[in-house]
Amino acid sequence: MRFVHDTLPQRVRFASGEAAGQLAEEVRERGYSRLMVIATESQKALAERILGELPVAVWHHEVAMHVPAGLATRGREVAAAHHVDVLVAVGGGSTTGLAKAIALTTGLPIIAVPTTYAGSEATSVWGLTEAGRKTTGMDERVLPQTVVYDASLMLTLPVAMSVASGLNALAHSIDAMWAPRANPISAALAGEGIRALNAGLPKVAADPTGLTGREHALYGAYLSAVAFASAGSGLHHKICHVLGGMLDLPHAQTHAVVLPHVLAFNGPAAPDAEQRIAAAFEAPSANRGLATLRSTLDAPTALRDYGMTEDAIAPVVEAVLAAVPAGNPAPVTAENLTALLRAAWEGDLPR
Amino acid sequence: MRFVHDTLPQRVRFASGEAAGQLAEEVRERGYSRLMVIATESQKALAERILGELPVAVWHHEVAMHVPAGLATRGREVAAAHHVDVLVAVGGGSTTGLAKAIALTTGLPIIAVPTTYAGSEATSVWGLTEAGRKTTGMDERVLPQTVVYDASLMLTLPVAMSVASGLNALAHSIDAMWAPRANPISAALAGEGIRALNAGLPKVAADPTGLTGREHALYGAYLSAVAFASAGSGLHHKICHVLGGMLDLPHAQTHAVVLPHVLAFNGPAAPDAEQRIAAAFEAPSANRGLATLRSTLDAPTALRDYGMTEDAIAPVVEAVLAAVPAGNPAPVTAENLTALLRAAWEGDLPR
Repeated sequence: MRFVHDTLPQRVRFASGEAAGQLAEEVRERGYSRLMVIATESQKALAERILGELPVAVWHHEVAMHVPAGLATRGREVAAAHHVDVLVAVGGGSTTGLAKAIALTTGLPIIAVPTTYAGSEATSVWGLTEAGRKTTGMDERVLPQTVVYDASLMLTLPVAMSVASGLNALAHSIDAMWAPRANPISAALAGEGIRALNAGLPKVAADPTGLTGREHALYGAYLSAVAFASAGSGLHHKICHVLGGMLDLPHAQTHAVVLPHVLAFNGPAAPDAEQRIAAAFEAPSANRGLATLRSTLDAPTALRDYGMTEDAIAPVVEAVLAAVPAGNPAPVTAENLTALLRAAWEGDLPR
Repeated sequence: MRFVHDTLPQRVRFASGEAAGQLAEEVRERGYSRLMVIATESQKALAERILGELPVAVWHHEVAMHVPAGLATRGREVAAAHHVDVLVAVGGGSTTGLAKAIALTTGLPIIAVPTTYAGSEATSVWGLTEAGRKTTGMDERVLPQTVVYDASLMLTLPVAMSVASGLNALAHSIDAMWAPRANPISAALAGEGIRALNAGLPKVAADPTGLTGREHALYGAYLSAVAFASAGSGLHHKICHVLGGMLDLPHAQTHAVVLPHVLAFNGPAAPDAEQRIAAAFEAPSANRGLATLRSTLDAPTALRDYGMTEDAIAPVVEAVLAAVPAGNPAPVTAENLTALLRAAWEGDLPR
């Protein structure tokens, strides 16, 4: 047992149906008086309902995927012009991402009110896209000071999207098991995340308007993100990063498809992780646990269903080979990576 | 699921046999150049070995149990006189406690190198004793910035002391299950803490000079302290606080004796906690799990073995009744509390 683990400071307020009340209490307790509220146009009404009578200095709706640098600059200008003292991000990963881009240069605190299972709110990772290139980094200043989790905000997320987003969250905890900075603490959190997602997601699929499943899934997504933030990116995320960057495949679905293949690939070479994952699934093996969950959820199975062509496999393999994380449990070769990607492309069972 | 959870920032460096190297790396990375080293006279040689060639501005050996206010004042004066920029505490709870008392008023960062399973290094709780009265409080400034855990430093802790200290750590995680701010996150950490202590302590008892048991126990003690810091003091700690304060009973042994009685008392009224504890012990019930561990360890069983007289039961009951934590799972009455304390005093099996 030898590791270095950094625990990051964050307050979590978890209360279904109480986003408005919890946010108000947080703003009052911290003494903020000039809020910049970030939310997409489509989530404007939701954000207004949550903000209620709080002292909003400015509403900001210019949000886009992958945080284009131009939007970050504009967001920073708006924050400065209105002398805001806190950023309130109501939305998914892109909305939180813009708040982080503003916090990165201004040091403003963030209160995040997530509406998906993306998990960005629990990490100190930021990202910016300029001229088609995405730069990412880690900085404690971008970690939201407080997260207000209200599972009732997820009730309108369609089942297919909930499943894909939930499996994306699951990828955080599973990949955290063998990521470069993995340690017993991140593994314990990841195990608890898998447990909660495995309990919650089938309930979400079976009863999309019920709160219990949404709560477990949201709680599991949070723990998975914490584990991931601590352990770093493993092989799974390197593969998905290349697929997303080169081919612009849809984020959550790509993760959902690739995950069982990486688990089957790394599991045999990482028996401790395999056992922890199996135990969290309460299944005889990690692979079986994930397969059972995926079949319950009718999860995405093939990258070709999302527009990837067969001739893209080779360049993806080449790019992933250049980015294989140090210490990946199973040795990665052009040959076995090609087999993995071909199986994920075709929708074959993982080997 | 409704809770507020504050995660406190802390770095943990866990590496057996490497305290000196890990401390040097931490000091170098943070750029500290004037260290105040706090260690008792009896741990002076150990501290010197760990500090090696690091830039120590002053050595400080005036440490006593429960942090007498006079010693805190002297420690603060020494820190100021020597313009130190970091406090390095090498030792157990009293040593860490003095560093915290200095940090409380000076804001100086602390690097803790624990030599027991006390867990103070993982909490923001400080304590000061003046004219026989102990005052405690919580302040983020006293939370050590970094903890260097080196299980080899525990190899010389005698088995009986290791067992008592380990059961004291176990009390942190068990009591955290129903403490006032208990939540799913603290419960998950507490469960992992129980698991690690249950794996480690029997190995420590069977093979006191082996590292594996010491490592698991130390890791479990850390997680238990984190869970406890987050969840607060439950009934168990209120009882032990009164016993320690009124009767000056030995700290770790008191916890070891009282714990099974509080578990048997609260467990039936807290089925979720009971199940989590049982699962962590991998036992059919929480009580059985703890009983098995205690019998393996030949744990302390009766308060009267530590000097408590029978007529002390009544005043202790009265004092505890005035301090019962809000939301304790089982209703506490003079009658059932008297029965609990009498059983702990006599060494009866918990009911």
